[in-house]
Amino acid sequence: MRKTIIGVMGPGNHPTDIDLHRAYQLGQLIAQEGWVLLTGGRKAGVMDAASKGAQAAGGLTIGILPDDNTSQMSEAVDIAIITNMGSARNNINVLSSDVVIACGMGTGTASEVALALNNGKQVVLLTDDQDSQRFFISLSPEQVFLATSPEAAIEFVKASLTTIL
Amino acid sequence: MRKTIIGVMGPGNHPTDIDLHRAYQLGQLIAQEGWVLLTGGRKAGVMDAASKGAQAAGGLTIGILPDDNTSQMSEAVDIAIITNMGSARNNINVLSSDVVIACGMGTGTASEVALALNNGKQVVLLTDDQDSQRFFISLSPEQVFLATSPEAAIEFVKASLTTIL
Amino acid sequence: MRKTIIGVMGPGNHPTDIDLHRAYQLGQLIAQEGWVLLTGGRKAGVMDAASKGAQAAGGLTIGILPDDNTSQMSEAVDIAIITNMGSARNNINVLSSDVVIACGMGTGTASEVALALNNGKQVVLLTDDQDSQRFFISLSPEQVFLATSPEAAIEFVKASLTTIL
Amino acid sequence: MRKTIIGVMGPGNHPTDIDLHRAYQLGQLIAQEGWVLLTGGRKAGVMDAASKGAQAAGGLTIGILPDDNTSQMSEAVDIAIITNMGSARNNINVLSSDVVIACGMGTGTASEVALALNNGKQVVLLTDDQDSQRFFISLSPEQVFLATSPEAAIEFVKASLTTIL
Repeated sequence: MRKTIIGVMGPGNHPTDIDLHRAYQLGQLIAQEGWVLLTGGRKAGVMDAASKGAQAAGGLTIGILPDDNTSQMSEAVDIAIITNMGSARNNINVLSSDVVIACGMGTGTASEVALALNNGKQVVLLTDDQDSQRFFISLSPEQVFLATSPEAAIEFVKASLTTIL
Repeated sequence: MRKTIIGVMGPGNHPTDIDLHRAYQLGQLIAQEGWVLLTGGRKAGVMDAASKGAQAAGGLTIGILPDDNTSQMSEAVDIAIITNMGSARNNINVLSSDVVIACGMGTGTASEVALALNNGKQVVLLTDDQDSQRFFISLSPEQVFLATSPEAAIEFVKASLTTIL
Repeated sequence: MRKTIIGVMGPGNHPTDIDLHRAYQLGQLIAQEGWVLLTGGRKAGVMDAASKGAQAAGGLTIGILPDDNTSQMSEAVDIAIITNMGSARNNINVLSSDVVIACGMGTGTASEVALALNNGKQVVLLTDDQDSQRFFISLSPEQVFLATSPEAAIEFVKASLTTIL
Repeated sequence: MRKTIIGVMGPGNHPTDIDLHRAYQLGQLIAQEGWVLLTGGRKAGVMDAASKGAQAAGGLTIGILPDDNTSQMSEAVDIAIITNMGSARNNINVLSSDVVIACGMGTGTASEVALALNNGKQVVLLTDDQDSQRFFISLSPEQVFLATSPEAAIEFVKASLTTIL
């Protein structure tokens, strides 16, 4: 029986403190729901924080790594998928996630949100950045949900899963 | 001697008439400069229009195709690179372009602009969509240039090339 | 703590009965060792048989899918990674496996063995095909091990893991 | 009008002198036929020699690069496609070639021949290595042609093109 996978995407470099705090909480909540967490797998920023949160709550964590440099992998990744294809792996991140949560914003995260929308996925934006909210809603209003807390993001994910699974 | 490659990215589906008109002009101007045009290669929207413009002006056109369906290739593509990797090929589009011009906006185009910024490329936005202008400038103000005409876009490209080559 | 991943590669189309029998046994043995099984994820041939064996023994199974056609996924895959990049995903299969076992032979399997060797991985060949044995040993004698049974293959994997982990 | 692309694959490291000599001749002959040469693009071995031969004969050369390290690109590549996806780019090499010629043998070359066969392409083997001849013919006898000289390889390519184009 295929497991439900929820992707948490967010900045590896220069995350805000609130991004990191929310990412850790998202990881915990995803694990508590019995879902698998998928991130970009690096030992940095939102990826690392979400993976740590999920592991602390007893969940399973997947990291889709951009390269094969093991010293840069998050230690909280249980299953490391080595793509060695740089940012092109962002497309695998979103295709493999039943729903995508963007926690914070940056160029990599923006590419993942855009690729998720392009592939017909539903995306929860958990960010205070109003420019990104406005932009992505203008691109595809039916696929984008704005959340103001990790708990609200998880509620959106639950609702999405009832539709798509 | 490696040739200069300029990428023109834009919506394949539902382009505006002005997007198509500008894309054709961009193709012409790129060819007239002696540069090679790179697009996503499909027989659709901005990709197809830009390739036709470049060919009409005697230029060389490359298409980085998402699949191996030859019936969906633009007939104005001289060199077809078949990736068979869907939207993940968007990363190859931007990595292979010395400068990226986004002509119009959509989810695929947004992913290409974000990936270009993520990979350190300079991007010219030729679109009237203010939400995307505001968003991408907020992401990386030094890498994004706003243009209001194909001619202005080409001037920006020329200036960028003197810096990066 | 990152889990050990063992890849089982083999023909999806036209496997022999002995290939399928061995694949199922390999899946069981891998699960019994507490390792994670990785395959190409399709509902076909060696991939499917190995995944079923691992699941029957209570193990965790990963499938690295070439496309997003859910009707073609093995039902014995727990974690589906959707690459949508066709045979290029074969490189991810081998990069993500600590050791690769080739069970049977075909064009796809041959590409995976060659990519594994190219990436410095150790490969166990569990096949009666002498042409492939001779060829791959000639390519890289230090990286290729010949096994004549699933049990012998697992012994080779254990020995390899003590070296590389 | 889409151009005919012929791929020449062969070892980057440790090519034999005869491999290099044949690769240069293949490049020349491909250019003289008016075809575009496609290689892996690196400044090494068969890729570099074939590109130099094609350029010397006035042909157009494409390199599908595994990374974005410009110092490692062959100087005889006219059009550099930057994939940044390591050996996974081997699948793009063969998908983009109308016919594939393997000049010499190694682990990377073997992966390209296997991927080409897996994707339904016709492959000319120009190598004295009998183990690889026997193996690839056993895998798919209808798709593999043995050549003993660059001229013979080109004759096979011509015959193949009349079938597939």
